[in-house]
Order: sequence, then structure tokens, then C-alpha cells
Amino acid sequence: MLPNLTPDVELADKLFTELRARSFDGVGVTRDAYGPGERMAHALVREAAEAVGLETKPDPVGNLYLTLPGADRAAKQVILGSHLDSVPQGGNYDGAAGVLAGLAAVAGMKRAGFTPARDITVMVTRAEEAGAWFPTSYPGSRGALGTMAASELAVKRMDNGRALADHMREEGFDPGFVERGERVLGPDNVAAYLEVHIEQGPVLDAEEIPVGIVTGIPGSRRLRAARVFGEYNHSGGTPRKYRKDAAIALAELAVALDEGWCRMEAQGHTMVCTFCTLATAPEAGFTKIAGEASFMLDVRSINLHSCDMLFELLYAKVAEIEARRGVRFDLGAEGGSRPALMDAGVQEGLRRAAGALGIPAKVMASGGGHDAGAFANAGIPAGMLFVRNQNGSHNPHEAMRMEDFEKACAVAQRFAAEYGS
Amino acid sequence: MLPNLTPDVELADKLFTELRARSFDGVGVTRDAYGPGERMAHALVREAAEAVGLETKPDPVGNLYLTLPGADRAAKQVILGSHLDSVPQGGNYDGAAGVLAGLAAVAGMKRAGFTPARDITVMVTRAEEAGAWFPTSYPGSRGALGTMAASELAVKRMDNGRALADHMREEGFDPGFVERGERVLGPDNVAAYLEVHIEQGPVLDAEEIPVGIVTGIPGSRRLRAARVFGEYNHSGGTPRKYRKDAAIALAELAVALDEGWCRMEAQGHTMVCTFCTLATAPEAGFTKIAGEASFMLDVRSINLHSCDMLFELLYAKVAEIEARRGVRFDLGAEGGSRPALMDAGVQEGLRRAAGALGIPAKVMASGGGHDAGAFANAGIPAGMLFVRNQNGSHNPHEAMRMEDFEKACAVAQRFAAEYGS
Repeated sequence: MLPNLTPDVELADKLFTELRARSFDGVGVTRDAYGPGERMAHALVREAAEAVGLETKPDPVGNLYLTLPGADRAAKQVILGSHLDSVPQGGNYDGAAGVLAGLAAVAGMKRAGFTPARDITVMVTRAEEAGAWFPTSYPGSRGALGTMAASELAVKRMDNGRALADHMREEGFDPGFVERGERVLGPDNVAAYLEVHIEQGPVLDAEEIPVGIVTGIPGSRRLRAARVFGEYNHSGGTPRKYRKDAAIALAELAVALDEGWCRMEAQGHTMVCTFCTLATAPEAGFTKIAGEASFMLDVRSINLHSCDMLFELLYAKVAEIEARRGVRFDLGAEGGSRPALMDAGVQEGLRRAAGALGIPAKVMASGGGHDAGAFANAGIPAGMLFVRNQNGSHNPHEAMRMEDFEKACAVAQRFAAEYGS
Repeated sequence: MLPNLTPDVELADKLFTELRARSFDGVGVTRDAYGPGERMAHALVREAAEAVGLETKPDPVGNLYLTLPGADRAAKQVILGSHLDSVPQGGNYDGAAGVLAGLAAVAGMKRAGFTPARDITVMVTRAEEAGAWFPTSYPGSRGALGTMAASELAVKRMDNGRALADHMREEGFDPGFVERGERVLGPDNVAAYLEVHIEQGPVLDAEEIPVGIVTGIPGSRRLRAARVFGEYNHSGGTPRKYRKDAAIALAELAVALDEGWCRMEAQGHTMVCTFCTLATAPEAGFTKIAGEASFMLDVRSINLHSCDMLFELLYAKVAEIEARRGVRFDLGAEGGSRPALMDAGVQEGLRRAAGALGIPAKVMASGGGHDAGAFANAGIPAGMLFVRNQNGSHNPHEAMRMEDFEKACAVAQRFAAEYGS
């Protein structure tokens, strides 16, 4: 039987305040990946974990492990993981909430004198916000899991042009670990990976539910540099049939895909489709018909087939609009990712923990990508627990109520204490 | 009976070359209104007219008159007018073609020893491209016609912030003339105003017709600073029903107006509707739903009622999209102009001249606005003759074939020689 465990939310609260104070940039918080911001945050959390009495150690690529030893030290560990880096001028909770939830959970166990059946490790990953710093995905967790290609070490940080390998070395770590194809984590030594994270979307807030149990992380198909070319002409002197209007061609494509998305949702697909940007070229201006426009498209779904269907519509509409309007689309390079399903056993464990604590939980898909996807793709049972939050994420207005955070800590704590025991 | 008149196209050709050489800016030509560029062009053309033996004089607001005296000097004059200023980095023909067509026409008469029944005056207006330099319309021609408000003298040139009145004074002219409500031209002393101009659109070129006889100059309703406000959110984490997407709201408005225009044309309206620009705000970016977007809208028709109908559709769609998508439109200040019909007698005179010369001419509406509109609105019979051109106008690639120009000169010459005689 479990003792009456509670998370050490006071400790987390103190660390949230300290993190914000040390990384405030005048607008939001900036904790740069493999740089001074992330280094500061790792050092702060490591010091707090040592004060609580946890074992602490980094791995060769810079992830940090804060471990509460279990009764059977040879048993596969349970990991409560998240990251401490942020986007530039971001918020204090995206990433840090998961790390501090893990720390609050194990600190509460330690305080209660509770020894879990197996090691429970808070893992602080590196560079989860790679999209904002390095043009690669999850180099920290994938470096630990041995699923990162050596070639990815050459990617350059977007703000300073220096390679990921150089950044690793400067922070005191060893890119050779990745080059040699080694790993520290795998299905042989990790029983489950759980990531607590703010929702980033408005669903829990709108539906008044404090936490969410994630079913999966969507895959995506993305265009970051798509363009449409028409012809600049006089807006007064060019009748409809002589126009090659890039602006209206793009508007028509955007509306067609939005309507396609709407139809697909009505048919039961769960997905999102976003024209993140859409703009005539700087040369466009008053009394001219636009000769060029550009856009960014982000299509995501747990079911990659849904993304594929929308892209089929995209290709058909592009051809139709090109033929009818005399324009030409250049979709540029396509990016994207495969979806990652969260483990059914982990989801069940979270449901059971929330139920035992009387905490309402919504079963839902993730919107964004997370380290948990890298663990799932490496064959490790992975799960995520969302915390209700306000004002989205990746912005200075990111908000989270501490009573919601406390509920998430309690669910994560109970899950970790019970999992596989 | 008319003698066998031909225009002096060699003179025009030489002046086109000289104008381009003296105003080439490295990219296109720039002849700034009420500034050194326009001053250079007026001086060059005045010198050429004096060499031919025409009477030359400026008026108090800076327009230049090059006159071939008629047999009856008290009779109302025929004016062949256009401008010599250009937009920044524009082409060599928008404006200059009309001035040099007029000069070629009267120089040819002079060469042939022909004395017209009444004075024929080449009028070189000032600042026709006001849209690119001063935020007002046709200050040169309207200054001469006495239809300019004294308050317009205070508008500031967009590139240097100095007032129109100061620019007039610096060029040696007298803004007091406008302040006192005086005029030099009116229905009492002008029999007709004809403006030769490149078409600026692709219609004559596509239909293989050298010249166009203009029926009217469209009026317009315009939005130059319209915006739509939504809410920035995470593109992965925000389901459809929680979105306030400014990008897709704007795309939907653009497509709805384009479809409305298409329907109206099928019902017989002659008009154009252009989203000259359409763009998410700079803050938009990848993995975000756009919280703000802006656009410029230009709606034109000879029949202002057609513009009004499209604006009714605009207002209805804005309300519908606001309600459905949770966004808010701010249409900003509306601008525009009233249409101006070209005189039936002038059109008939142009048809007769073209017919006598065996030159095919298309009867068509103008796309852009011109000084001829100011004359029509002042009660003077006004007309325009378009010359087939390539690559539109207001750009360095503006092109015109000299054989087409010669045909336009011949029609204008014959029209001027015959009009009202």
C-alpha cells in the first residue's frame, strides 16, 4: 500500500520564481539551448535536487538525471522528464513545469521517507526547443536514446551559426558519444517515460478540466518556404482575364484547404491545418496586382493518413488554380514528422492515479511535439500529462495556476510510485 | 481641306532618348514631381518647342504651355496634354508619351506650314503622379483649372516631408494663385482637352490593336490600411473551434470579394477588384496561428454604383466572418475618387480621325486615373487616346513600339487639326 504522498509544491514554486528571475530578458524569458540560459537552469535544479538528497549526474550529451533510488536498483527505472530551455522571449512554464513537477513528486516521496520499488529519475533533457535554436528535433533525448544521426551534430545554432557539436563541447559534454552510436537509455533500462507539460492550447481551460492524459503526439507535413508566382500589373488597367494574381491565388488555396479540413473533421478526422503565414511579396503595393506571395503551412494529425489526404487536396487545388489563374506554385522543401502514440499501459496508469486522487482528467491528443515522441519511437512506453494553462505557450504571457500544477504533480507522483509495482 | 500632315516622330524619339538619359536612376527612371527631375524634363521639352518655333510659357502653378497659334487667336484652344513626372523607378513612357505625341503633332503642323483654325496647345502638367509624391490628386491640372482647394497646398511630399506650397515656390511658382481661387483654364477658353497615354494594361497588346479611344476614367473606392485582428495561438495545440485565425479570415474575405466581382461581371458590370496586398503581421511565424493581418483593397468602375455594390458585399462578409471566426476587422480610412466620363464629341472626333487614317482603334474604358478626369470634372470636353504598350506601367520594364506611338501621334494630330473647325 502507498503511504499518503504529496508533492513538494513549495520547492517547485520557489524554483519557478528563481528560474524566471535569472532568465528574464526584458520581455519574456530566454533560456538558450546548449548555452548560458540552459546551463544556468540545469545548475539551479541540480543544486536543489542535491539539497533534497537525490543522486544527480549528467550524461555525455548533457541531459541531467536526478534520481530517487528504488528498493531494486537493478529494476528498470521510471523517468519523469522534461526540458528547461525555452524559445527566445518565451514563457516560464513550457518545459520547466515538467521538470519541476518531477522534482516536486520525488522530493515529496523523499520527505515522506518513501522508497519506491524501482529508481524514479527526473530527467532534464537538453534542447527540446531545438526548433527555435537548432534545425533538428530533440537532440538531447535522442542523443541519450542513441537515435540521433552523427550528421546532426553539424547543424548550426540559428542565432550564432556555431555547430551543435561545438555547443556540446563548450558545455563540457562529448559529441563523440553520438558519433560512436552509443546510448544511455533504452527499453532495457527504462520501464516508462512520463512527461508533464502545459497544454499549450485552450482546451482544458475552456472545458474546465485541470489535467489531460495524452493519447499521442501528432505527426506533421509542413511547408516552410512555399511561394506562388503571378505577374505584377496595374490594378486599374488589367481586366480579370489578363490577370495572374498571386494574392488571390494564395487566398483561394488557403480557403480551399480550410474548407477541406472542415469537411474531413466532419468525417471524423482529428487534425489541424494552419496557414501560419500568408503574404504578398514586399514589392506588392497600392495600384498593383501582386506578382508574388509566400506562405507557411502546418498540417498535423495523430493519423498521418489525415495529413496525406489534405496534401492530396493541396496538390489538386494547386494544379487547378495554376491552370485557371495563370500562376505557378513552388511548394519548396517539405518537412514533417511521424506521429507517436502514447503507451496504453502508461495512459491506464495515469487514469488510475487521477481516479484514485479524485482529479478530473481529459483524454486528448497533444498538439505540439515533445521529447515523449522520441522515447515512444525508441520503443519505450511513453506518456504525457497535460496541465491546464492560459495564453498558449512560446510567449511571455504563458500562464498556469499553481493549484492545477499541484494536481498534475500529484498524479505524476502517484503514477511513478505505482507503475510496474 | 487638311494638307497631308504627319507628326514629327523623329523629334519625339530624340526627346525620349534624352529624357531617359537624364533621369535614369540605375534601375528605372525617376522624375520627381515639383523637383529636379520634373524641372529637367520641362526645361528640355520647352527648349525643343522653342527650337521648333512654338510659343512657350508656364502658368502660376508650373504647368507649361507650348502653343501653335491658330488663325483665330480668340477662339477656344484645343489642348493636347500630359505630364513628365514619373513614379520612383518608373518607366520612360507613362506621361512623357503624351507630351511628346502632342509636340510631334504640332511640330509636324509647323513643318508643313499648317495654320490651324484655333490655337493648339501642348500642355505639360505638373505632378500627375501625385500618388507617388504628394497625397493629393492632379495638383497641376487642378491648379490651372481652379478646382484645387487651398488646403491641399499643405500636403507634404512623401519622400522629404516638405509641403506642396514650398515645392511650388522653390520651382519659381506661386501657390498664392491657388489660395486666391484663380484659374487659367476653363470651359470659356478650352474647346477640348485630349490626353495621349500608354494603355498601362495588356488589352490592346493582347487584341493586337494599336490605339484605344477612352470612354471614361473609373471612379474608385479604396482601403489602404485595412486590418484584421485575431489571436496568436499554437498551431498544433489549438483545435478549430478555439481559433481566431486572422490569416484565414482575410483569405476568406478576399475570395468572397473575388467571387462577388466575378458574379457582377457576369451580370454586366465593368469593374476591377484587387487585393493589392494581403499579409499576416511580422509577428506571425511557424507553429503559430496568425493573430493579425493587413490588406489594401482597390475597387474601380466607370459606374460608381458597381463599386458601392461590391462594398456592400464587403461589409456583409466582414460581419459574417467576424461572427463566425471570432476576429475583428478594422477597415481604416476609405479613399477613392468619382468617375469621369470622356466627352462624346471628343470620342467621335477621335473615331473619325482614326477612320480617315485607316488606323484600327478599340473603344475602351481607362484603368487608371489621369489629368483628363480633372478637365472633364471642370466641365471641359475631354478625351483620351491610348497607345498599345507592353509590360504595364510604373515599372522600369514599361515598353512601347514607336510604330504604335506614330499612329497615336497621327490620330491626335488629325483630331486637333479638325476639332471644332
